[in-house]
Amino acid sequence: MRVSSSLRNVGRVTPSAAVVERVRRPGYLSRISNAEDLVPLFKNGDYIGWSGFTGVGYPKTLPTAIADHIENNNLQSDPATKKKFNLFVGASVGPEVEDRWAALDMIARRYPHQVGKETSKGINAGRIEFADKHLSMFPQDLTYGFYSLQKKHGDPTKPLDWAIVEATAITEEGYIVPGASVGASPEILQSAEKIIIEVNTRIPSLEGLHDINHSWIPPHRQPYLITHPSDRIGLTAIPIDPDRVVAVIEGDKPDNTGENAPENAESRAIARHLIEFLSGEVDAGRLPRSLLPLQSGIGNVANSIIGGLAEGPFDNVQVWTEVLQALDTFLQFFDSGKLDFATATSIKFSPNGFDHFYKNWANYKDRLLLRSQQVANSPELIRRLGVIAMNTPLEVDIYGHANSTNALGSRMLNGLGGSADFLRNAKLSIMHTPSTRPTKTDPTGISCIVPFASHIDQTEHDLDVIVTEQGLADVRGLSPRERAPIIIENCAHPDYKQMLHDYYDRSLYECLKRGAGHEPHMLRNAFKFHTNFMEHGTMKIKEWN
Amino acid sequence: MRVSSSLRNVGRVTPSAAVVERVRRPGYLSRISNAEDLVPLFKNGDYIGWSGFTGVGYPKTLPTAIADHIENNNLQSDPATKKKFNLFVGASVGPEVEDRWAALDMIARRYPHQVGKETSKGINAGRIEFADKHLSMFPQDLTYGFYSLQKKHGDPTKPLDWAIVEATAITEEGYIVPGASVGASPEILQSAEKIIIEVNTRIPSLEGLHDINHSWIPPHRQPYLITHPSDRIGLTAIPIDPDRVVAVIEGDKPDNTGENAPENAESRAIARHLIEFLSGEVDAGRLPRSLLPLQSGIGNVANSIIGGLAEGPFDNVQVWTEVLQALDTFLQFFDSGKLDFATATSIKFSPNGFDHFYKNWANYKDRLLLRSQQVANSPELIRRLGVIAMNTPLEVDIYGHANSTNALGSRMLNGLGGSADFLRNAKLSIMHTPSTRPTKTDPTGISCIVPFASHIDQTEHDLDVIVTEQGLADVRGLSPRERAPIIIENCAHPDYKQMLHDYYDRSLYECLKRGAGHEPHMLRNAFKFHTNFMEHGTMKIKEWN
Repeated sequence: MRVSSSLRNVGRVTPSAAVVERVRRPGYLSRISNAEDLVPLFKNGDYIGWSGFTGVGYPKTLPTAIADHIENNNLQSDPATKKKFNLFVGASVGPEVEDRWAALDMIARRYPHQVGKETSKGINAGRIEFADKHLSMFPQDLTYGFYSLQKKHGDPTKPLDWAIVEATAITEEGYIVPGASVGASPEILQSAEKIIIEVNTRIPSLEGLHDINHSWIPPHRQPYLITHPSDRIGLTAIPIDPDRVVAVIEGDKPDNTGENAPENAESRAIARHLIEFLSGEVDAGRLPRSLLPLQSGIGNVANSIIGGLAEGPFDNVQVWTEVLQALDTFLQFFDSGKLDFATATSIKFSPNGFDHFYKNWANYKDRLLLRSQQVANSPELIRRLGVIAMNTPLEVDIYGHANSTNALGSRMLNGLGGSADFLRNAKLSIMHTPSTRPTKTDPTGISCIVPFASHIDQTEHDLDVIVTEQGLADVRGLSPRERAPIIIENCAHPDYKQMLHDYYDRSLYECLKRGAGHEPHMLRNAFKFHTNFMEHGTMKIKEWN
Repeated sequence: MRVSSSLRNVGRVTPSAAVVERVRRPGYLSRISNAEDLVPLFKNGDYIGWSGFTGVGYPKTLPTAIADHIENNNLQSDPATKKKFNLFVGASVGPEVEDRWAALDMIARRYPHQVGKETSKGINAGRIEFADKHLSMFPQDLTYGFYSLQKKHGDPTKPLDWAIVEATAITEEGYIVPGASVGASPEILQSAEKIIIEVNTRIPSLEGLHDINHSWIPPHRQPYLITHPSDRIGLTAIPIDPDRVVAVIEGDKPDNTGENAPENAESRAIARHLIEFLSGEVDAGRLPRSLLPLQSGIGNVANSIIGGLAEGPFDNVQVWTEVLQALDTFLQFFDSGKLDFATATSIKFSPNGFDHFYKNWANYKDRLLLRSQQVANSPELIRRLGVIAMNTPLEVDIYGHANSTNALGSRMLNGLGGSADFLRNAKLSIMHTPSTRPTKTDPTGISCIVPFASHIDQTEHDLDVIVTEQGLADVRGLSPRERAPIIIENCAHPDYKQMLHDYYDRSLYECLKRGAGHEPHMLRNAFKFHTNFMEHGTMKIKEWN
């Protein structure tokens, strides 16, 4: 192995009793190391993959040791010593590691999703190259070698130099039992020349919670034989080649998840509209009484929806989602007897929530399954199961195109995530958003319903229902000319309703006149809400022209 | 059955020898009817589904009889007698029926794709409500009842009043053997209260060419157990309930397909860039020597690509596509021994091509399979097989968003088709387009590379490679800031290169200044190419401002 000469300090550490209890592969115990001793292994320009998803299950100790070393030795101040890495993680990780790397300008490239002030600052300042990608596709594109086309060093068959992965246990075969997320870890491990495992002894062993299938590449890819959220198709641990494990380190830091967003009147109103709509679908015979598997996003609206479902009229509900969050309402939902089974690629509870969850593990373990993001977000499965998908965009336009990522078309927030995996393939594709957001000078200065979305991640072809606190627009089966008046009337805030109706009416008139009236627009005015906001701090325009 | 009282003339016709040979279900022979006698059955506002896809396999006789009746009796001139129908077909059908219906203002609503001057004129003039939809999703949304939410008459469990479907044979069970397309016929038949079958005795029986699986609805949907383009998962005919067959009529008109677009220097240059790229991928070990199953669109570039492949370095190639067209090159490809197997939902050859194909049926029948569009365009299968997808947009922007449907954002051409089914899910998502198109006054008046696509059907997250006659941009793994200069430099026409570079450079400068530089834009100028074209007949602007 190329690195062995620089690994003089690897395996010099006597394993603790706690770590011995977790690591059932004896050969790994001779590779237990101090994080600090591994730091010199990481070279400028290395391609590194981490475990982790939505701030859960990421390596905490080694990335911190690398950052400490760089900060303490002031390496970034000199181009000769500066280190920047290409970082690949299934989705976001805890800010105490990722955001710190970003603040220290240690990230050259970061795919495919992130949450963190410093990371997005780096992206929008041009210091970090970032591309957001459907979370179901990121792992496969990584294994295809699409992210390492410019990598000239190391093993040409391996897209990554390093995988640094958290485990809560290691099996006799040397396989990795993850923490409370799977994410892209299977493919990151598959793609890495060298593997370092952080065994987290603070989090209990979650062995049995995961369903891990091998990620084959075409023409060898196989069907996912899942027809119910509880179906298992894989192992309970991630298979790896033990010879590639360079070192094992011990960690004891908790996942740094923070608190969940609190519900408010607005989120409750949105949830009310939604549950009323779903009830109507059940009454009309278009959905079974137990609904179909639910996907819900992150945030206070998602909390209100789950809370509403816990008290709602639906029994034996299933959840097929990307991330299970909002412990209190999910607990309530489980304990109400209305939620039968939930599966995701990550569980994101608040710190107290996780304590409670681990303490009452026996109550939940048979009703939960974590899968890789390639499977959890798989178009194949979302479409087969007929998932009901609910997500929040930044803005939706009057024809049903949505912006999930870039404020004013250019400023990246977090990335696409799995929104398009779900919205494209769901049986019911639902977007919920407040009708307005405040600006510095105007409490309704931003309208979330706009003439033309300033960035488009979800197209008109992928949206069935739009909900704001104002109401719900069911646009299934409607043409663009039928959609616009309904979206405006049912969803826009009263402060913007007339402006939007005027935009549509004028556009319709102009476009019909020139025989181009399928999806009427005045292109010269399409972004006037946005340019007005940039100039005057509000989207409230004086007039169209 | 509700209609039986109005069916006095049904079954009055003595079947011809040709039709008796095709119809193996004796009960159907007593329902042989004249098309003219069925015309009065169709009421204003009826929901009608037809077989057909890309102008192949559609009913020709009955729709013509209905149009004749309406035209001859001048029914459309009086609101009291006017008849407009809601028309659902898998994709486009022959202009002699659909375009005639549109010209007679007989179409109230048309989903999900169309090709025809009169139809698109009706859509853009506001007379026809049209929504384009992913072709893989249209049939399922139809069975879900999403297109009949406003239908108040007839059987509430059936989204359609009528299915009018062409057959080339009928089995003992009464099942339908389609012509040279399957499209949405299985779901249209499943969704219709009453069925009328047109047995086409001019086209040979194509029994054995089709693979028809049942279209289950969640939570009962099952995996598609296909891992190779030649795998079969269904029957050779479409199962239907014989009791719903109201009438059978005889037809003898050919599919009205027209000639294929001829190759030219531009299409050959695009094909050359593409084949060179694919060769590079094989050399780098990212594709097998036999490539992966190919999807190619319609038009002269597709012809050039297939022609290039027939002479190219790849053996044992497979095709997994929506429509097989371009007979001469496909024949060449088959006969070169380089094409092993091809599957699609439709075969669209020129009239001479079809003659040749039917005459040499024995040479092709074991290397071809037609499936429903829900399967042919299925995300599940496209992703599993790792399809290489190649399609033509109207325009692509500098970050890789593409417009496949609406000229200048508002004027519908044909619809989305299956482009997004393939581009979203393919292993390699490729878009090819000439770099410019002529206007009345300027031979390069329209740039197909624009700052911001005026309608977005395919997002930046779904595109790997863009090709024009100028060159190829491989944008895999690149951030938006890395993509723009490469797309402009490699793909834009020299007449527009500097304008586009200037747009990007100014946008980058402005956006970095305000910390919003992930995907740089000047929203005030984003559509300036388009508005300049509307005002001056060319996209060549004088300056940005």
